Amino acid sequence: MTVLDAYKSLETRFRRWSALREAAGMLTWDMAAVMPEGGHGARAEQLAALDVVSHEMLTAPETGELLAAAQESNRLDVWQIANLAEMQRLYVHATALDSDLVEALTKACTTCEGIWRKARPAADFAQVKPYLQEVLSLTRQAAAAKAERLGCSPYEALMDQYEPGAKVAAIDAIFADYAAFLPDFLAEVLAHQAQQQAPVEPRGPFAIDKQKELGQRIMGTMGFDFTHGRLDTSLHPFCGGTPDDVRITTRYDESQFVYALMGIIHETGHALYERQLPADWRLQPVGQARGMTMHESQSLLMEMQACRSEAFCGYLAPLLMDAFPGNEAAFAPDNLRRLYTRVKPGFIRVDADEVTYPAHVILRYRLEQALIAGELSLDDLPGAWNDGFKALLGLDVPSDCEGCLQDIHWYDGAFGYFPCYSLGAMTAAQIFAAAVAARPEIPAAIGRGDFAPLRNWLATNVHGLGSSLSTPEIVTRATGRPLDIAVFKNHLRQRYLAG
Amino acid sequence: MTVLDAYKSLETRFRRWSALREAAGMLTWDMAAVMPEGGHGARAEQLAALDVVSHEMLTAPETGELLAAAQESNRLDVWQIANLAEMQRLYVHATALDSDLVEALTKACTTCEGIWRKARPAADFAQVKPYLQEVLSLTRQAAAAKAERLGCSPYEALMDQYEPGAKVAAIDAIFADYAAFLPDFLAEVLAHQAQQQAPVEPRGPFAIDKQKELGQRIMGTMGFDFTHGRLDTSLHPFCGGTPDDVRITTRYDESQFVYALMGIIHETGHALYERQLPADWRLQPVGQARGMTMHESQSLLMEMQACRSEAFCGYLAPLLMDAFPGNEAAFAPDNLRRLYTRVKPGFIRVDADEVTYPAHVILRYRLEQALIAGELSLDDLPGAWNDGFKALLGLDVPSDCEGCLQDIHWYDGAFGYFPCYSLGAMTAAQIFAAAVAARPEIPAAIGRGDFAPLRNWLATNVHGLGSSLSTPEIVTRATGRPLDIAVFKNHLRQRYLAG
Repeated sequence: MTVLDAYKSLETRFRRWSALREAAGMLTWDMAAVMPEGGHGARAEQLAALDVVSHEMLTAPETGELLAAAQESNRLDVWQIANLAEMQRLYVHATALDSDLVEALTKACTTCEGIWRKARPAADFAQVKPYLQEVLSLTRQAAAAKAERLGCSPYEALMDQYEPGAKVAAIDAIFADYAAFLPDFLAEVLAHQAQQQAPVEPRGPFAIDKQKELGQRIMGTMGFDFTHGRLDTSLHPFCGGTPDDVRITTRYDESQFVYALMGIIHETGHALYERQLPADWRLQPVGQARGMTMHESQSLLMEMQACRSEAFCGYLAPLLMDAFPGNEAAFAPDNLRRLYTRVKPGFIRVDADEVTYPAHVILRYRLEQALIAGELSLDDLPGAWNDGFKALLGLDVPSDCEGCLQDIHWYDGAFGYFPCYSLGAMTAAQIFAAAVAARPEIPAAIGRGDFAPLRNWLATNVHGLGSSLSTPEIVTRATGRPLDIAVFKNHLRQRYLAG
Repeated sequence: MTVLDAYKSLETRFRRWSALREAAGMLTWDMAAVMPEGGHGARAEQLAALDVVSHEMLTAPETGELLAAAQESNRLDVWQIANLAEMQRLYVHATALDSDLVEALTKACTTCEGIWRKARPAADFAQVKPYLQEVLSLTRQAAAAKAERLGCSPYEALMDQYEPGAKVAAIDAIFADYAAFLPDFLAEVLAHQAQQQAPVEPRGPFAIDKQKELGQRIMGTMGFDFTHGRLDTSLHPFCGGTPDDVRITTRYDESQFVYALMGIIHETGHALYERQLPADWRLQPVGQARGMTMHESQSLLMEMQACRSEAFCGYLAPLLMDAFPGNEAAFAPDNLRRLYTRVKPGFIRVDADEVTYPAHVILRYRLEQALIAGELSLDDLPGAWNDGFKALLGLDVPSDCEGCLQDIHWYDGAFGYFPCYSLGAMTAAQIFAAAVAARPEIPAAIGRGDFAPLRNWLATNVHGLGSSLSTPEIVTRATGRPLDIAVFKNHLRQRYLAG
């Protein structure tokens, strides 16, 4: 077999592997969006069988042999080289852990998550602590094993699962900068906000079919192609499916429509990224989204940058007045803008505004690093959480329910994910600024409900690159420099202190 | 490894295999019921990948070795022995054909089906003939290969895919009996019908949400458990999903509701069979439905035996009056019964009434046997069809569109399926008669909307047996004798000549 044959065999193998992962993705969407309650047992068996066969395909000795052979080739083009590197990364992650550890970790996470669902409303950290200890111990083993293979720190090995190549030193610097910037800035924003008239709250009820109709209209405006996707309902909004069949969800509440609408806009941002991934590289690793930082940047670019802007509020106002008559004052563009950019420090990450959100992430990032390094014990976690929160946002956490019990991530074993949220928000600001600089017509076009200039710029400069470049390379290529927190801070100053 | 270990290993292997088949089943439901049009390419890749990995799992040398080892055991109980026999049957079907033939057949069927979709409306048999010839030639090769392994005739080997163990001699006798019975009986029925007042047709439009609401109510009445299943919409009604998550579909037409409602009742019959399969044998071959004759018998038992009965019409009448006011005369129970049992010979199988339907099947059964045996050429198929139709139903077929082009089956390679429809209808009559004989309260209960006596009897005597017995064994055990066409003829006489 020639080295080029080895590469082609890998493409065939990964094509099938990716198709099986897509199958699992569709079944996961089904489980959240349409499956009846009694289907859980059968679905778990289906997903487990898909996991086993796709894992076996990835970890087969032949995969390793083909990877070794293909590395010898000097006839691959840049996309093929990048594809091979992604294959290698997937292979390393899949083979770094022995199957006993994988099984123990899966079981520990499932058990711990179940206990957490009871412990959280009871604010009873002690109840879940032994289970979290098991998850943490096994995760530390996994992190060490992966770190050795990847040549990075254990915590970086965990981040690598979500954001390939993420480096602690770079993130530390960015987050330290923001933590230093926040206290004074937040005080300024709150003072500025206090001087302004409080926004008028729209009054419901807001009929769910009207909310859905409006959501679908906005999706269409943003460029969501309904011949290649759907909008459905689930407990937590998400974007699932595949690039050619993107399934997004939201949830509705008759008493307010903002959550559902912003959920739709956020998930449509994810969906457009998936949809505009390079069509020639479907089902190949290099054809996938770059990582979770970039994915979050694309949802937040739409939600935070494009759709909480003055321009978009101007476009949205008449649509809202039409859908929900009798709220003229609340739906005035300037009132909408103030409603959508209200800053109010609080304890819950998922309810946080754009300004304070990074503080929630920085806290978790620091704590989970310490947990993985073995420098913080679970006994000390609630106290460390509360101290850290006080230092970052100046508030006293009233209970673990509003503290270290609030997020599912750790209890489900997802250590290393949190930084992606805020790196995504910062990346979004920088990419949006670059898009507007390159195409100054973008804000006015958004004001007319024309997202094509923004969407097309993103297709060329971000989406269409798939995983052919690293996240820093994509950011540098698209914006002229690596991630620069100054751009995000500038965006916040403009939005929250001007006017 | 002990022989018992070999059996246990097979259970593990087939459990995973079944879970992958279930995954494919769910994705097939999704494709028909909710997938956006642009998802077809990706879905085809997903289903192909699932086919490849599950086929490889089944045909791996280890499967054959384990089967050989497990056969030696004398410590298996009757269900395990039956399970092993089903595993062996699946293995033989999967290994009888070499992969080149499987691939050529799949490709030929896909191509031929595509051409048929254009040739049918154009009534242009010549256009599709060369493609059908390719499908037929490859199917004959496959039938010969399977026949050798199964020790039966080639046509029986094809039937075995749908109705394991089906024998031509037995079916020939049953169908010859019906073909001889039909002409005089049909004349009697039409004469009897002509003497009666023509039924009043209900007048629409019938709002689709009302139709759906009514359908769901009837499903609930029949015992469909919505925590373990759903009702959705698709172009052709079907029952998909899994025993613990049964997905049925129908289609709606504002101008008439009978098609949607009877579709729902028919598919609910399939669904109840799936749902009541033996829970202890989920994901094992012996836990599956016995075959397509038995499956059709369960849908037709509900549609034809239970729900076109006088008792059910009495139950349905007030529900219809409530859902679609202004049709009191049409919805009178006796008018409903006459509407639902109207006999009218026609050219199209799927529109045929209960009396003439078997003639459509007998024609196809005879023709496909001759095609597989090489005794009929495709050049002669349209003529043979039209001659056969004239002999069976006394009508001249006006065009191939209403003749040999009407059904997808042959063009998609499904030779050997047709007999299941009428064997199912006859089996349904016999099983329903046995149920009523054992539980005389069943008709009155149905009249009150109480399906529990019927459903529970079916659970014990049919559904709960899974594939632990053959179809003739289940029929004999449930009804006291093998399939006896006299019961079906007696049912027809009672329904169409009495009163």
